[in-house]
Amino acid sequence: MSEHLVIIGGVAAGAKAAAKARRLNPNIKITIYNESEHVSYSACGLPYFIEGIIQESKKLFIRLPEQFKEKDNINVFVKHKVIKISPEFKKIEVLNLDTNKRYEVEYTKLLIATGASPILPKIEGLDLKNVFDLRTVEDAIAIKNRTLISKKVVIIGAGYIGLELLESFSAYDVEITIIERADQILPVYDADITVEIHKFLTEEKNIKIITNDAVQKLIGDSENNLKQVQTSSGMLIDADIAVIAIGVKPNTEIAKNARIETGITGAIKVNEKMETNIPDIYAAGDCAEQVNLITGKSTWIPLGSTANKQGRTAAINMTGGSASFNGILGSNIFKLFEYTVSGTGLSETEAQKAKIDYETTTLIHKDTAGYMPGSQIVTIKLLAEKATHRIIGAHVIGKGDADKRTNIFATAITAKMTTNDLINLDLAYAPPFSPTIDPVIMSAQLLQAKLENKTE
Amino acid sequence: MSEHLVIIGGVAAGAKAAAKARRLNPNIKITIYNESEHVSYSACGLPYFIEGIIQESKKLFIRLPEQFKEKDNINVFVKHKVIKISPEFKKIEVLNLDTNKRYEVEYTKLLIATGASPILPKIEGLDLKNVFDLRTVEDAIAIKNRTLISKKVVIIGAGYIGLELLESFSAYDVEITIIERADQILPVYDADITVEIHKFLTEEKNIKIITNDAVQKLIGDSENNLKQVQTSSGMLIDADIAVIAIGVKPNTEIAKNARIETGITGAIKVNEKMETNIPDIYAAGDCAEQVNLITGKSTWIPLGSTANKQGRTAAINMTGGSASFNGILGSNIFKLFEYTVSGTGLSETEAQKAKIDYETTTLIHKDTAGYMPGSQIVTIKLLAEKATHRIIGAHVIGKGDADKRTNIFATAITAKMTTNDLINLDLAYAPPFSPTIDPVIMSAQLLQAKLENKTE
Repeated sequence: MSEHLVIIGGVAAGAKAAAKARRLNPNIKITIYNESEHVSYSACGLPYFIEGIIQESKKLFIRLPEQFKEKDNINVFVKHKVIKISPEFKKIEVLNLDTNKRYEVEYTKLLIATGASPILPKIEGLDLKNVFDLRTVEDAIAIKNRTLISKKVVIIGAGYIGLELLESFSAYDVEITIIERADQILPVYDADITVEIHKFLTEEKNIKIITNDAVQKLIGDSENNLKQVQTSSGMLIDADIAVIAIGVKPNTEIAKNARIETGITGAIKVNEKMETNIPDIYAAGDCAEQVNLITGKSTWIPLGSTANKQGRTAAINMTGGSASFNGILGSNIFKLFEYTVSGTGLSETEAQKAKIDYETTTLIHKDTAGYMPGSQIVTIKLLAEKATHRIIGAHVIGKGDADKRTNIFATAITAKMTTNDLINLDLAYAPPFSPTIDPVIMSAQLLQAKLENKTE
Repeated sequence: MSEHLVIIGGVAAGAKAAAKARRLNPNIKITIYNESEHVSYSACGLPYFIEGIIQESKKLFIRLPEQFKEKDNINVFVKHKVIKISPEFKKIEVLNLDTNKRYEVEYTKLLIATGASPILPKIEGLDLKNVFDLRTVEDAIAIKNRTLISKKVVIIGAGYIGLELLESFSAYDVEITIIERADQILPVYDADITVEIHKFLTEEKNIKIITNDAVQKLIGDSENNLKQVQTSSGMLIDADIAVIAIGVKPNTEIAKNARIETGITGAIKVNEKMETNIPDIYAAGDCAEQVNLITGKSTWIPLGSTANKQGRTAAINMTGGSASFNGILGSNIFKLFEYTVSGTGLSETEAQKAKIDYETTTLIHKDTAGYMPGSQIVTIKLLAEKATHRIIGAHVIGKGDADKRTNIFATAITAKMTTNDLINLDLAYAPPFSPTIDPVIMSAQLLQAKLENKTE
């Protein structure tokens, strides 16, 4: 049999892998099977479509199925679900969701890029109209249409997606309530760094934030329309629409059935070449684990950027080349009204969990020369390992340019730089872009002084 | 004699060193002698004062002389010129410019922070009214006042300062001509990366740019008012005001007279502790050399950020501590209307001069997810050493966020990262901040493919 690269799932990692494999090998046969209707789209852009910043949903599509064929001779079958992998015969079984017909396909190399799905709480009322989760373009369209005729929105979960949605909904004339089970919004961040955002959302944006409480029941009327959200503490919140954003889980069922190993995170175990435990089967994207570059431990932080890098790595290795994806820092960023909220590396909670002895400091400073009229505040919380002075984490939030600072820290952490390395870093300086000494450097100076029990 | 830390010059490095030394040692005597009237101000902010973005010149002062005394018990003598250093007696001679009296002062440690001065061409007419250079707050005030009653401005020199001034003047109803001796604007950048800016300035901003030509003569009227600028090629340009911005030179006269060594760059030679060749005499800021971290060679790129770091390093070492400043990359950035122009590390010309065998690639890409409405273009020119794949230089310009990218590259170059290290860098991704794969990573992918003679 001639070479046949089969890819299950074509949203991010799968689409990237297909395109990259084609560039590396013009002759190989490449096929993508995709359960839903859409491949190659930006799921991260969905909140901006709901908000109305992006007017047309089609802008989120990077490539249409027919474009894969025309441009790169890649076969894309949408609404085709792969229902079984048989590694011993190097075959998969495919179900055509339109015709309900099944058939077998042989592969020489297989990439599992099945992505992740929203976690749904085990509560009554999930089947009510006007209760949504957000994963696909169809979800976003349905949410947007319903929002237009709603007055009261409830968001369940105050992680990244929940908070991004909060901004999306604020573009409409609606009352917004957000409910979070943890005792703070944005539970992956240390509590101290979230206080300012919490205050901003409640006081300046009139968002109702409920923490330390969970949704117990979704209550509908006789026509199955959502009417109220009931929480564990007994609150009843009126709602015309509810969106569930409590997290996602990797889609691993088909892999597990084929005895492909999953790790402690629940996602598919892969090595740095994106190989699973079974020869010629690779996994990449939201269904696969990563290694945390600081702790060396397995982690699972599904993100479009990581999915692309893993897809690219898999494609190189599946076409006979050699590439490694060593891991991630957990870098993240999102926009929340005028705020940028971002972080990289470990939080205090994560450092404690990893049993790393650390020191930390928090700096609040203007992001440009203080005399420039557009100057805004950034807050930097920086962590370094006590023994080595290595930077292990940074969270940067504020109305100022947090993005730049977080990415400098991400680069520094990757390179195992110390506080002292940062102190003398030759960052580009001009008054519209930073103070003479950038807050990145100031925070490193402060942290180093603390590590050495000295005055800065 | 009790300890007496004497600092010559109090603008950037000197002011920083004094404040830092005081924090490290509350008991030592600290004195700053400053030739001009002002200490501790942001010279980099002067173009923004001329432009009118900063309304009041006093905003540029970080600390007034009396504040040094009140807050930190640091003695500041303005309009006091140090006219001689006698290392053998550990004394300096000071001239009070108001009273014309001279006196001697003993020091235990001496810091030379005399800064730099504008280079003036050797041409007729420099003494005409309405011919300026820009170094002090007084210069900026005079330029601004004159601009208000001018119609035609000529800027001599199209380096950073000349180009920043171009934006300053464009806030007024004036015709602007800029003259550059080299065959391109921004001669420290490779020519190819400046083409877009040149085009933008001439076509969209109506700036008249003359390259490959120098000013030969400034022609005045009977009242010594500038009327015309004559170039070497014979052009005559009408002008109500001319500003000379052809470069700066280190102020080293007093150091040389005391046999303090200067380097091949003409600036004062210092080691990583900011020590000169004479015991107990240090130098920092615009009068001192730096080491280029990539070539290991002496260089001289005067900048406020470097001055601050050197001043801090000198203060730690002068008060009995130990700190090193290892060098710079030559990172630079400036705003030019909607454009950001920035770079770090070596240009092609500089790499050739350093005899480094390099590969280079240029990427033009949107700076955020393409579907976000605020998306803008950035152009990245990236250089890596052929043998090691180490990143050695990056220039990033565009209407998009070049600042973030240049600083990621600066951090990567400092850490000796390779193209492959950049390819897997976990930069923080969300649609308002970058495409799924940041242009930093894309440019590294392209460059790596070129280094390996492969397809990306």
